Amino acid sequence: MSKIKAYAATAADKPLQPFEYEPRPLGNDEVEINVQYCGICHSDLSMIENQWQMSSYPLVPGHEVAGTVAAVGENVKHLKPGERVGLGWYSKSCMVCPSCLSGDHNLCASGESTIVGRFGGFADRVRCHWSWAIPLPDQLDAKSAGPLFCGGITVFNPIVQYDIKPTDRVGVVGIGGLGHMAIQFLSKWGCHVTALTSSADKAAEAKRFGAHAILDSRSDEALAAAAKSFDFLLVTANVTLNWPLYLGTLRPKGRLHIVGAVLEPLSVPVFSLLMSQLSVSSSPLGSPATTREMLEFCRRHEIAPQIEVYPMSKVNDALAHLKSGKARYRIVLKNDF
Amino acid sequence: MSKIKAYAATAADKPLQPFEYEPRPLGNDEVEINVQYCGICHSDLSMIENQWQMSSYPLVPGHEVAGTVAAVGENVKHLKPGERVGLGWYSKSCMVCPSCLSGDHNLCASGESTIVGRFGGFADRVRCHWSWAIPLPDQLDAKSAGPLFCGGITVFNPIVQYDIKPTDRVGVVGIGGLGHMAIQFLSKWGCHVTALTSSADKAAEAKRFGAHAILDSRSDEALAAAAKSFDFLLVTANVTLNWPLYLGTLRPKGRLHIVGAVLEPLSVPVFSLLMSQLSVSSSPLGSPATTREMLEFCRRHEIAPQIEVYPMSKVNDALAHLKSGKARYRIVLKNDF
Repeated sequence: MSKIKAYAATAADKPLQPFEYEPRPLGNDEVEINVQYCGICHSDLSMIENQWQMSSYPLVPGHEVAGTVAAVGENVKHLKPGERVGLGWYSKSCMVCPSCLSGDHNLCASGESTIVGRFGGFADRVRCHWSWAIPLPDQLDAKSAGPLFCGGITVFNPIVQYDIKPTDRVGVVGIGGLGHMAIQFLSKWGCHVTALTSSADKAAEAKRFGAHAILDSRSDEALAAAAKSFDFLLVTANVTLNWPLYLGTLRPKGRLHIVGAVLEPLSVPVFSLLMSQLSVSSSPLGSPATTREMLEFCRRHEIAPQIEVYPMSKVNDALAHLKSGKARYRIVLKNDF
Repeated sequence: MSKIKAYAATAADKPLQPFEYEPRPLGNDEVEINVQYCGICHSDLSMIENQWQMSSYPLVPGHEVAGTVAAVGENVKHLKPGERVGLGWYSKSCMVCPSCLSGDHNLCASGESTIVGRFGGFADRVRCHWSWAIPLPDQLDAKSAGPLFCGGITVFNPIVQYDIKPTDRVGVVGIGGLGHMAIQFLSKWGCHVTALTSSADKAAEAKRFGAHAILDSRSDEALAAAAKSFDFLLVTANVTLNWPLYLGTLRPKGRLHIVGAVLEPLSVPVFSLLMSQLSVSSSPLGSPATTREMLEFCRRHEIAPQIEVYPMSKVNDALAHLKSGKARYRIVLKNDF
């Protein structure tokens, strides 16, 4: 095996720089992927900056990979070199715990994450357990497929988990990398979709993604006027909101589901849940099976993230663009090693 | 119609005293009930003391009624005078909103509560809309039936709403008026039931109610040792707990459901929900249809609250006993007007 070429942060406050490492012999259950494209996710930034206190350096970010199989371990029979695959946040699950055996590999307590304690996809190659190397349908463009494996599945999975119905009225809070995909999924799912955003300039685009209505997420009056109007509210923003006010927009039996990494604890009065039997929840990504369903749904409905492509060698410019908040809506690195 | 004799609080800090009122002509959709027994619920105390800022005086508490039909309005064809019925927290629903039309009359936004702005069941008679006068199966003892209509349905309903499975492992937090019924329901439901209590003296009784295990709810070590062990945690206590620690006892996809009237907002870190896809929720009582299912389940499995009976004329003694925290486990007033 030749060395793997990558970009790594050497400390929390340092720009990424070229980095090479010698991979170990390929494990029996492992797949090595030739990276064609790799999306950039906010959690790459969080990991680079050690916001979650679980980073180790050198840190190679990147967990929205689209590429082709470079090599497979000897136990891997269902994937062949050259086959197109994607890889997201998870790179390994134990396969034997009750969650794995129930098909919920994303809830495996001893799972491994692509960029935690191992090297990720800002590289020419990356590895994972076979369960997380997920075949890409032919019709999906590799360029825009990467972001589906983290941002996409994070918002698609709750729709499946909570059995959201086409007759439901739903709200998507925050129109960014995740939110703009959530609007597309929910719109094609058949739901009535309201985009809740504080950026007036995103309204027209939200409608183009399939939103039926726009609501100013910073207007207490607008939120109060939307009382009891949503069955499901998907929060992709990662800031503290006025939770009781947002809960007030839910219909009886409604759910407020948060996929944004909100760091401050939620403060929720029990009475704001009680009278209408409301639920508050959160979830991490989705299982391999649900990811496959998402990819097929994307193919069927021509759903794709809206992306901006940078050569991987310009990764620091791309990260700066992400930090500026101006990315529309997901940044993808093209491997130019 | 003769006057209705009752016990009423004339102010938040006053003992109840005899009170009579002239009822209006019976409405077409109303049922008048001869009260035989009426349970005392913590929410009677909260209302007497105006803790929820929605009390009006004179206030006649009582919303766990077991009795017989005294009279019916002219639209009421399915109930006959003399028939045994129960009445709980709700006394009227609009019958036409989406919640009512979906069978969720307990989630009706314009519903009426038995002791809010009207006179309740610490009386010789009480009235309600026909939807909430719920027939009592012959085999149920009127003496212990009242508490099922508030405390009982409050803990039975979530088992139905969230599709708790007989294979589930569940925990009941707080072994009081609600908790001791929850243990019986969940045990007969087929679940493995752990009672979480801070009272060592309740352990033996909890086992008699059907608990398979006891856990000291104030021991951080015991809670930490119970990590990822429950599918469903039903909180009947009305105090703030260490929510992240309790959430930690849930298995993936687990739910923390609170039916205690916890006044302080919950503080819940999103990350404590995210990794295992957990939900936090609350709910009010249950629908008429679910109440009927509960009564049939009680009949089938000989489930009943454990009660202490006071004559209604000793209502102030009974309230003092409730406040002392020494009631085992529900107090019922016997009408002695």
